[in-house]
Amino acid sequence: MATIAVAALADGSLLASASKASCSVPSKEVAAPSFACVSNHRGTFFGGEVVQLRVGCKGGLSRMRRRFEQRVASPKSVLMPPDGGDLVDLIVPEKDRAWKHAEARGLPRINISRIDLEWVHVLSEGWASPLRGFMRQAEYLQALHFNTFPTKDGSIVNMSIPIVLPITDVQKELVEGSGAVALVAPDQNIVAILRNFEIFKHNKEERIARTWGSTAPGLPYVEEAITNSGNWLIGGDLEVLQRIKYNDGLDHYRLSPRELRAEFERRKADAVFAFQLRNPVHNGHALLMTDTRRRLLAMGHRNPVLLLHPLGGFTKADDVPLDWRMKQHDKVLQEGVLDPETTVLSIFPSPMYYAGPTEVQWHAKARMNAGADFYIVGRDPAGMGHPIEKRDLYDPDHGKMVLSMAPGLDRLNILPFRVAAYDRTKNEMAFFDPKRAEDFLFISGTKMRSFAKNGENPPQGFMCPGGWKVLVEYYQSLTSSKDVRPSRQPALV
Amino acid sequence: MATIAVAALADGSLLASASKASCSVPSKEVAAPSFACVSNHRGTFFGGEVVQLRVGCKGGLSRMRRRFEQRVASPKSVLMPPDGGDLVDLIVPEKDRAWKHAEARGLPRINISRIDLEWVHVLSEGWASPLRGFMRQAEYLQALHFNTFPTKDGSIVNMSIPIVLPITDVQKELVEGSGAVALVAPDQNIVAILRNFEIFKHNKEERIARTWGSTAPGLPYVEEAITNSGNWLIGGDLEVLQRIKYNDGLDHYRLSPRELRAEFERRKADAVFAFQLRNPVHNGHALLMTDTRRRLLAMGHRNPVLLLHPLGGFTKADDVPLDWRMKQHDKVLQEGVLDPETTVLSIFPSPMYYAGPTEVQWHAKARMNAGADFYIVGRDPAGMGHPIEKRDLYDPDHGKMVLSMAPGLDRLNILPFRVAAYDRTKNEMAFFDPKRAEDFLFISGTKMRSFAKNGENPPQGFMCPGGWKVLVEYYQSLTSSKDVRPSRQPALV
Repeated sequence: MATIAVAALADGSLLASASKASCSVPSKEVAAPSFACVSNHRGTFFGGEVVQLRVGCKGGLSRMRRRFEQRVASPKSVLMPPDGGDLVDLIVPEKDRAWKHAEARGLPRINISRIDLEWVHVLSEGWASPLRGFMRQAEYLQALHFNTFPTKDGSIVNMSIPIVLPITDVQKELVEGSGAVALVAPDQNIVAILRNFEIFKHNKEERIARTWGSTAPGLPYVEEAITNSGNWLIGGDLEVLQRIKYNDGLDHYRLSPRELRAEFERRKADAVFAFQLRNPVHNGHALLMTDTRRRLLAMGHRNPVLLLHPLGGFTKADDVPLDWRMKQHDKVLQEGVLDPETTVLSIFPSPMYYAGPTEVQWHAKARMNAGADFYIVGRDPAGMGHPIEKRDLYDPDHGKMVLSMAPGLDRLNILPFRVAAYDRTKNEMAFFDPKRAEDFLFISGTKMRSFAKNGENPPQGFMCPGGWKVLVEYYQSLTSSKDVRPSRQPALV
Repeated sequence: MATIAVAALADGSLLASASKASCSVPSKEVAAPSFACVSNHRGTFFGGEVVQLRVGCKGGLSRMRRRFEQRVASPKSVLMPPDGGDLVDLIVPEKDRAWKHAEARGLPRINISRIDLEWVHVLSEGWASPLRGFMRQAEYLQALHFNTFPTKDGSIVNMSIPIVLPITDVQKELVEGSGAVALVAPDQNIVAILRNFEIFKHNKEERIARTWGSTAPGLPYVEEAITNSGNWLIGGDLEVLQRIKYNDGLDHYRLSPRELRAEFERRKADAVFAFQLRNPVHNGHALLMTDTRRRLLAMGHRNPVLLLHPLGGFTKADDVPLDWRMKQHDKVLQEGVLDPETTVLSIFPSPMYYAGPTEVQWHAKARMNAGADFYIVGRDPAGMGHPIEKRDLYDPDHGKMVLSMAPGLDRLNILPFRVAAYDRTKNEMAFFDPKRAEDFLFISGTKMRSFAKNGENPPQGFMCPGGWKVLVEYYQSLTSSKDVRPSRQPALV
């Protein structure tokens, strides 16, 4: 192993500075200002911020060079193909709907929860391609132990979190021996048929430990969907009887991966960069996104499009609810902080695990299936405060590191999040410059909420006025209606 | 995905019975008696016991067929090459020893524990090839999250458990800024130099959860080596100043992978099948091993050699100590229960994690590095009772399943353990026949210990008399000397 620093010069050539003489790559100084965006499964760097890569001398670097040259040579790249080659679509075609419904009505039934329904939604549209239903035991064990599973052709795809359906002892008894079961949503509608199923033990403690790296009480998804769930898991092939809708006025934002791909093509995108979020967009985020587009343009892309992709499934009690977040994101686009021409705002239907380095792989993989080839990753992605200790649950750097090393994600370009803070000399959000640290003000999530709750304004330039107003309304509605969502964990912005 | 049952006929042809019409493999009935031994990373079967494989139609089966044909075509296979191509050897050559020792004496020192020393031993001889020292953060994270890490050529090797060296805050302060540190064994001798090191956080809770799938109090390795260990891990390149010896009268059993390979070659082995154990050998084990050799001979191998490979590092308090186990194993060979001509008895220097499906991968990988191409895996390998709940810590079938799916272990042939029990109609250990279950007596570890402690004899034919006598002596020595090792977990035979 050698430690190699790599960067691209303005003329497009690729430089490497290797720490070991055994490495045959020519070593040059890294020139600044440089720009580049290259990643493979062992490391990542972006822009002037060169990250040290631990790669093998032979394979890693030449593969990186190849990827980079391909990009430079063909800036008009097509959209990223989905995992497994074909985008999975489990929604029953219109013509078969009536008789499948009739069949489903005759099957044993399993009542599923809102979170289960969100997973049905995720599976139905191919976000988890090539997965075709809730996991059977072999897929479950591979997700749990290796964060991958193999495709038909023997290659592997990333799959870091188990997508499983728990059932109780009573439900197990009810469905055993049947060839298929009907899944019944909380509104009592039959939403799907699960065929050729397999029932296996729901080893909750082990599942939690291996997924979250903790079994501490208070993990939001665990408390909501695992602790009191059934002792068995049922996996099989899913047929979804119709598109999943929530009738909450937001369904038009819920574009499927196929629809997103069509939208990117309609806009003639030659690069798609995805930004996962579950919090309001402040101007630091916006700076990062516009700067990313600038860099992709400088790399030779003609029309990089941003997928602004708030998570729409289960979130913990003290996160800002989806409807308020969507109002806020709308304002950000209306007020031109992000350019509507080059931004697609859509909802990602997955529930939130808050499982840090394990979950960020899922967030990235799902966006790859929707056509993204660049993924922006921040500090402590999908992380939160430890539920019972005074510290972060995960090392804030691990998410980025694990993501860049994750098997099955080497096709995706990982863009590390550059830290932005409020620059008091300019009265705007700007990339943090450690040489003049004293000029910068970090506005924490807690601070922001405290401003909003008290109706105070944050420093000018922190967030667009319309977006800020939405937040103030949200927090004041909580106070006035006493509909305070209980807070167990510190929310992160 | 299709479910395919595969078996080989006596004429060497490979049969497949596929459950889906979409699979292009010709489907035939499996003929009995059949014998075969094939595995890839998605499934495994052995002998008459055909295990269902979940494999892709194209890649998986053709790869299996290729492997099988290679074996049939060239029964005189060379020994399995080590992971990464070259067997790592970190022991300083004789000629450099004096000056390296002198250098080491001038370095900051870290006192290491007995378990740390066992890991130095493991690393020094290349059991963990291609790993060249205690893990740095990138290797650690990959082991923890993916059970693998990439080699120089970009391929991946299996590495399921973190091999790491914890240090305290004080030690960290002492060594920071130094280019290398000296590792000092419990006997106060400097045993190794760790160079180009990296210090990173020892996230104990997460390490434990992801490795054991549990954070319950009472996990033996965790209590012994993690809970009270330092808050930091130090990883780097290891140079071991001399071969690790324990001077316990057993060092001659501690053959390195290189020595084992030489021994297998001396014996002209054309197949090596490894049996990991940490318990006394009863005649059921012996039956399995002799039967495995018979099957390998029937497959066309001319001289399959057994690596009888008791684990020699840390074990939990109620396991039979190594010295007594070695006495017992010696008797098994002396009394001809296993054939000394085709059996190599040697000690595997690794500590025991009791981490079930995660650890069994390490046990298999290390033996592959010692030249084994067949690995026998039993029920609940490396498992134990849950420390605080009345159940097994792991699903007893998961070890075998996870092992057969583990990335980086597809070169190794996994042989599932056939269950043996005491056949009352024959007064001997025999493979369990479910058709006449009532004839069989299962003698648990607890039962065996209870016999030995009370000086009672087990049913004739359960264990060779000399071996049994050793066990009786051991348990009686405990009672007489009051040197009772505290028992928290049920020991498994």
